[in-house]
Amino acid sequence: MTSPFVPGSAVRIEGRAGGPLSGLTFAAKDLFDVAGLPTGGGNPDWARWNPVPERHSWAVQTLLDAGATLIGKTITDEVSLGILGENAFEGTPLNPAAPGHVPGGSSSGSASAVARGLCDTALGTDTGGSVRVPASFCGLYGIRPTHGRVPVEGMLPQAPSSDTTGWFARDAATFARVSSVMLGEAIAPARPTRLVIATDAFGFAEPATSAALQPLLERLKRLIPDWREEVMAPQGLSVWGRAQRTLQPVEAWETFRPWVETDNPRFAFSVARGLVLGAMTPESERGWAQLLRQEVRGRLRHLLPPGTVLAMPTTPFPAPKAGLPLPMLNPLRDQILCLCAQGGLAGHPQLSIPGATVEGLPVGLSLIAARGADALLIGAALSLENA
Amino acid sequence: MTSPFVPGSAVRIEGRAGGPLSGLTFAAKDLFDVAGLPTGGGNPDWARWNPVPERHSWAVQTLLDAGATLIGKTITDEVSLGILGENAFEGTPLNPAAPGHVPGGSSSGSASAVARGLCDTALGTDTGGSVRVPASFCGLYGIRPTHGRVPVEGMLPQAPSSDTTGWFARDAATFARVSSVMLGEAIAPARPTRLVIATDAFGFAEPATSAALQPLLERLKRLIPDWREEVMAPQGLSVWGRAQRTLQPVEAWETFRPWVETDNPRFAFSVARGLVLGAMTPESERGWAQLLRQEVRGRLRHLLPPGTVLAMPTTPFPAPKAGLPLPMLNPLRDQILCLCAQGGLAGHPQLSIPGATVEGLPVGLSLIAARGADALLIGAALSLENA
Repeated sequence: MTSPFVPGSAVRIEGRAGGPLSGLTFAAKDLFDVAGLPTGGGNPDWARWNPVPERHSWAVQTLLDAGATLIGKTITDEVSLGILGENAFEGTPLNPAAPGHVPGGSSSGSASAVARGLCDTALGTDTGGSVRVPASFCGLYGIRPTHGRVPVEGMLPQAPSSDTTGWFARDAATFARVSSVMLGEAIAPARPTRLVIATDAFGFAEPATSAALQPLLERLKRLIPDWREEVMAPQGLSVWGRAQRTLQPVEAWETFRPWVETDNPRFAFSVARGLVLGAMTPESERGWAQLLRQEVRGRLRHLLPPGTVLAMPTTPFPAPKAGLPLPMLNPLRDQILCLCAQGGLAGHPQLSIPGATVEGLPVGLSLIAARGADALLIGAALSLENA
Repeated sequence: MTSPFVPGSAVRIEGRAGGPLSGLTFAAKDLFDVAGLPTGGGNPDWARWNPVPERHSWAVQTLLDAGATLIGKTITDEVSLGILGENAFEGTPLNPAAPGHVPGGSSSGSASAVARGLCDTALGTDTGGSVRVPASFCGLYGIRPTHGRVPVEGMLPQAPSSDTTGWFARDAATFARVSSVMLGEAIAPARPTRLVIATDAFGFAEPATSAALQPLLERLKRLIPDWREEVMAPQGLSVWGRAQRTLQPVEAWETFRPWVETDNPRFAFSVARGLVLGAMTPESERGWAQLLRQEVRGRLRHLLPPGTVLAMPTTPFPAPKAGLPLPMLNPLRDQILCLCAQGGLAGHPQLSIPGATVEGLPVGLSLIAARGADALLIGAALSLENA
């Protein structure tokens, strides 16, 4: 198991004095530009293709301006293509809550650094689950904000119609402080008016994981007495997952194709395979997935009017063991993506809340709200922590 | 451009005194076991999967026993999957006859080392053209022997139904000395009884290449007055190429699948892509390709009774420039494989003879004979050089 930090990225860039995040330290996933450092993207050939940035990314600049101090850049799955956090070139960052298990990815190093207490918060990205999954596996708060709400300037893209900037923290208070800056909105404890419990998602997760989340869910029900159980995905979580696993690789191939075709870069086999499959996806599959995306958006608008939150397991199980062979990993990855698909498809904000374990391994409970209602999720987490 | 030798492989293992190859030096492609050195296979993750060999491969042991001295191991395309000689991990060995152009692969370092005069001969492997192509591009003698004739013990396999052990030299006399040891057969100047000139292959090659080979072909016709022109591939060279490009990746995937699935190794994108396509090939395509292979075998048996040799361009053009993007390289690779397909499909011996250039860049003339008639090809080359 490896340090969460990219070798050679040790920096200390002090935040502005007197800002709202003064006294906090942060790390940035190696997809975010930091002026003067190469943006490695978790792949040995990406930096060669891209010049060393002269400006900070929007997210790094925003945290520095608010007073947080940058202490380093963190390991990511190669160009964000991965959900487990095993990087064949840079190593697997330690999951301190589950040693010997993966940290989750692609924001693996950011989650690991926060979970280890090496910094207070860290920037990640979430296209298909890359903040939510490591938050769940490492026992952290982690958000995928409303798509399009947080600027992605200076962040290495993957699938722009799904890409978001997210962040992690160990406790709800710190998470709320950082979120207030990133969202540009005051955040206070809040009590959603209604709660939807996604029965299909709890049914899809492993029974031990769903059971482990019940105490958290009970506290949530006491906080929000107007709750009901409902199916989130009438078409099936596997169908939603299929649509996201069609659209995202196609878009990722469009993003990386000029680099790949010119540079013939090195990748772990699994990463290259994903790009090849993206390149080979028939237009008919893509067209269907776009239509399904439209259905998913309608469904989540219907389920999540302002004031309502939906609860579901962030991941179907806790962190798998590190170093599993691909025939064992691939089906696990596909299951994880079924519970993450709504994020990329519909762009609603989703917060993973820690506090449950299965045989000692963390699993997160996710809250989802209407587009733009990111603060409601964090406010509910504050209320829940204090409840 | 890089040294042809694998870093850390500098050795000197003296050949047996008084053998028929005494005084000669040789290098071995990094697919051949040398006792005490890792067999790297041109990929950073292969050696981890495979223990350091305790015995020499058959080919290395045979040359040492015959008196040749081993001076190092040479760069190969990753696990022999490549025809151009550009290795993203180890570099592109210099083609001294065409600086700035690829050396050809996958036996890139072996061809480069011999062409640069760093050793007298070198071991390569040829599954789909990996000796013939670098011989053509570097201006060397290079043989793909009859399939199954030269033991492949201790040689990293790719597609066993096509794999062969080959070798290079700068002049026909040295080539004949080495060949006599490798084939276990005395070799003397010879004059084939009949010559077939493959009009489809000369038509498929670029006109400048076919034209450049005419003087060599004229000398060959004077050596073998009973010559005639004929189509080699009635089904089409593109069809033969398609069959080989179906069978070989399927078999390569079978060979490497346990390693790939367990280790998720790093590859250049183009190499991983080939394995993915091999894994995805439908059984119906494979079945057709097997039938076509049967046709090719019948055709070459018909064209090449004992005593007859067939002449064709080894490659359709000289070495492409190094560093081309994949959309430019891929069609060139496919054209090269069309002229190489008969080797893997039918297993006849094929010798590439140097002596022609296109704008200063070498191109080889190939001779093909009946299965088992390897010595006739080399004998003809001796006669041709002395003619």
